[in-house]
Amino acid sequence: MKSDFNKNLKIYNSLSGKKELFVPINKKKIGMYVCGPTVYNNAHLGNCRTFISFDLINRYLIHLGFKVRYVRNLTDVGHLENDDDDGEDKISKKAKVEKLEPMEIVQKYSIDFHKVMERFNTLPPSIEPTATGHIIEQIDCIEQIIKSGYAYEKNDSVYFDVLKFNKKNNYGRLSGRKLENMMNNSRSLDGTTDKKNPQDFALWKKAEESHIMFWNSPWGKGFPGWHLECTAMSKKYLGDYFDIHGGGMDLKFPHHDCEIAQSEALSNKNPAKYWMHTNMLTLNGKKMSKSIDNFILPSEIFSGNNKFFEKQFSPNVVKFFMYQAHYRSVLDISNDSLIASEKGLNKLFNGLNLIPELDCNEKPSDFDIESWINNCYLKMNDDFNTPMLIAELFDCLSFINNVKKSSKNLNIIDKEKLESTFKIFLFDVLGLVDKPESNNAEDKISSELIGLLIKLRNQSRENKDFKLSDQIRDDLMNIGIQLNDDKKESYYKKIK
Amino acid sequence: MKSDFNKNLKIYNSLSGKKELFVPINKKKIGMYVCGPTVYNNAHLGNCRTFISFDLINRYLIHLGFKVRYVRNLTDVGHLENDDDDGEDKISKKAKVEKLEPMEIVQKYSIDFHKVMERFNTLPPSIEPTATGHIIEQIDCIEQIIKSGYAYEKNDSVYFDVLKFNKKNNYGRLSGRKLENMMNNSRSLDGTTDKKNPQDFALWKKAEESHIMFWNSPWGKGFPGWHLECTAMSKKYLGDYFDIHGGGMDLKFPHHDCEIAQSEALSNKNPAKYWMHTNMLTLNGKKMSKSIDNFILPSEIFSGNNKFFEKQFSPNVVKFFMYQAHYRSVLDISNDSLIASEKGLNKLFNGLNLIPELDCNEKPSDFDIESWINNCYLKMNDDFNTPMLIAELFDCLSFINNVKKSSKNLNIIDKEKLESTFKIFLFDVLGLVDKPESNNAEDKISSELIGLLIKLRNQSRENKDFKLSDQIRDDLMNIGIQLNDDKKESYYKKIK
Repeated sequence: MKSDFNKNLKIYNSLSGKKELFVPINKKKIGMYVCGPTVYNNAHLGNCRTFISFDLINRYLIHLGFKVRYVRNLTDVGHLENDDDDGEDKISKKAKVEKLEPMEIVQKYSIDFHKVMERFNTLPPSIEPTATGHIIEQIDCIEQIIKSGYAYEKNDSVYFDVLKFNKKNNYGRLSGRKLENMMNNSRSLDGTTDKKNPQDFALWKKAEESHIMFWNSPWGKGFPGWHLECTAMSKKYLGDYFDIHGGGMDLKFPHHDCEIAQSEALSNKNPAKYWMHTNMLTLNGKKMSKSIDNFILPSEIFSGNNKFFEKQFSPNVVKFFMYQAHYRSVLDISNDSLIASEKGLNKLFNGLNLIPELDCNEKPSDFDIESWINNCYLKMNDDFNTPMLIAELFDCLSFINNVKKSSKNLNIIDKEKLESTFKIFLFDVLGLVDKPESNNAEDKISSELIGLLIKLRNQSRENKDFKLSDQIRDDLMNIGIQLNDDKKESYYKKIK
Repeated sequence: MKSDFNKNLKIYNSLSGKKELFVPINKKKIGMYVCGPTVYNNAHLGNCRTFISFDLINRYLIHLGFKVRYVRNLTDVGHLENDDDDGEDKISKKAKVEKLEPMEIVQKYSIDFHKVMERFNTLPPSIEPTATGHIIEQIDCIEQIIKSGYAYEKNDSVYFDVLKFNKKNNYGRLSGRKLENMMNNSRSLDGTTDKKNPQDFALWKKAEESHIMFWNSPWGKGFPGWHLECTAMSKKYLGDYFDIHGGGMDLKFPHHDCEIAQSEALSNKNPAKYWMHTNMLTLNGKKMSKSIDNFILPSEIFSGNNKFFEKQFSPNVVKFFMYQAHYRSVLDISNDSLIASEKGLNKLFNGLNLIPELDCNEKPSDFDIESWINNCYLKMNDDFNTPMLIAELFDCLSFINNVKKSSKNLNIIDKEKLESTFKIFLFDVLGLVDKPESNNAEDKISSELIGLLIKLRNQSRENKDFKLSDQIRDDLMNIGIQLNDDKKESYYKKIK
């Protein structure tokens, strides 16, 4: 890697709405905080996209030579049903449904989340703090915010005074909302709340009788508000001002705007220099949602056991599929797009595996390797533009195939660079795996065997030997492999 | 399983020094707390033995039909170098050495610990709380102990007053130590400590300038004493009085005796009905210790990359080896003992795999299956006596081998019981894995697919379509599967 690539990275900062040159606060050390999952159910594929995107960002920063302290939290208390200050706590509610202690729910779904992240070959964060693990730090923050004058206690709860804060500061600056518009559009308070204004948000909530998760505090038994944990934990592990704060697009408001308000009340600082937000994953053109049954878990894709896709897809393929869109674009997942990604990824891997076998000599290559490598970095330096990076890899793939057919020349020194650059971007940066997991070899054998059987079946159909072609189809079905005939070719899916 | 086996379980209670009938506090629901690792380095095999033993206990209780809430903590603060109230915090010290934030150390070694436990196919605990995650609960406990009169504050630290406690209670009852003997054998205080007596232990320690882990408290900035976390967390998740408290033998004193004192000061209750302690693992006859370089990590055994053993051993073999001794006995690991265990385990698996092929009939078996099953449970009910259980399994293995040689008779109904009982004890109770790791299903599919292709080839040969039969043979050869034709059938072997 040329040493100056780490000086030319541009990051789209949600705060300015512009791509900005990335200038770290402390030269080589980067602090990055990403809002993690609320661990009350199995992470769906939409959640995963966010964390896979930040894995890419983490990996690329590491590749550029930075030392990243990557903090990603687990929310295990305080996230109420409507992402607001009312309704039941998501963890507590699930605990009642599953007849478990809230911390058993947290354990169960944290383990699930970690397993999924591992299947996707993402690097674990450097620190993974929990909200319940930082109650005392949150209480400390509340006491300071009260002291600063921007919070008030009412009936054993404490609220952030948005109106007062906004007089000297700018509430809603990240999402671009104006407090006066919000106030005009909100219903007036109905008398059941302790808030002075509907825009105020809870820093500490009094635990009602029915509440099963609570802690002692200067304001009595209660629990922290959802927005506070990220402020308390990022401050503890990254300081008052750090490089990158990230999360899903849906967290911009109110969550991240509230975080900024809290931090400004605490230390007069917007906590992060760069705010990054990942976009949504839709399924067959619609938002993923449990309520409309448009919803898929990673494990259902890996096993093929789902109603959306005709076959199973590996974590590698799903990850590659995600990187074929930019992290700030909406991405739609469908059967066809996954099949296309699988083919594309196979072509890239085949290309990579071809390189060692390519003939080469000392004449110049018919391809400008240096400028190609440069372009790969330029694309990643352009706000982590993975689809453009992948286009560069495919560009080079045509050259590799032409060298294989002896229609283009490859220089011996370029050959090494070609292979190492391909590996850097596929494995280190995109975090794909060459031989996925332990059953890859077996997987490969069985797909090759299925390929043989499909070929035999096609031959028998061409020969009008329909008895044999039906027999092959039926025999495969008996061992759990369903063939689907297309005009051009046969696909299969494992149904057991 | 006969329903009354869960009424006849006997557990050796370290508190009474006797085997006692296990009578759960709440019929079907069991609370079990096990002291987990201090996550400041890679878990060595000795640590693992403790958690593997409690995995067995957890699994057997579940098998007996109990619903177990199994709480195992991670110690991430407060455990000082000498397991005492002086010296540096183990996590902080490692953080300085590795130039990481203490919570980065915790994350790194927690991930390692979880991976090792997963390789050993242990079930995760229901809840895995951390000391730093329960500071507020620990502060609550301290305030209550001060109120009860058994703790005093001195220079911003708080100590448990052992002498005062012992006047009405019995300090040291678990380890069988007498306070007066301890006092006679201890050096007098040298004036640098705030303790009234050398036996007093810290509940809260003032953080000195150099300390990097601390929290606000009613006594100023500080951190909790090591013994307190387990009291606070077991109380929170299992209540003041629960069924089983476990840990390694070395934790009896002072850790568990201090826990008992804290709980008695808080609620007048010894927190656990049954106290269980696992014994040491030695290596080549000597205690495992880093300082004398007599020390092995699980990963070094699995990879074979170590100076102690001549070959690699799977997690399955190491686990089976451990179960060949009773959990309360010292166990020595050596090359020869591992080789013997590997042979033994292979014999058992071969026996299990033989069962489906055994000839059987409706005549009575030459082996009393019912009383054998009964004996298996009796052995486990005798304080989880795995070596005796394994002896029972070997006993039955001789019978299986004799049936195979047609020298003994097997009844058709007994055959099913034999197979299911073998599986229950090997897989559900001992938690061994049949075909280690994940490629089992794929293995099965590829052998079925190869079977189909062999069938097609045989058909084509019968039809004298040698072009097709040769094609199938060649295609298989191309993907690394070599067919060998016998007079009766075709065999294959994977050559890649």
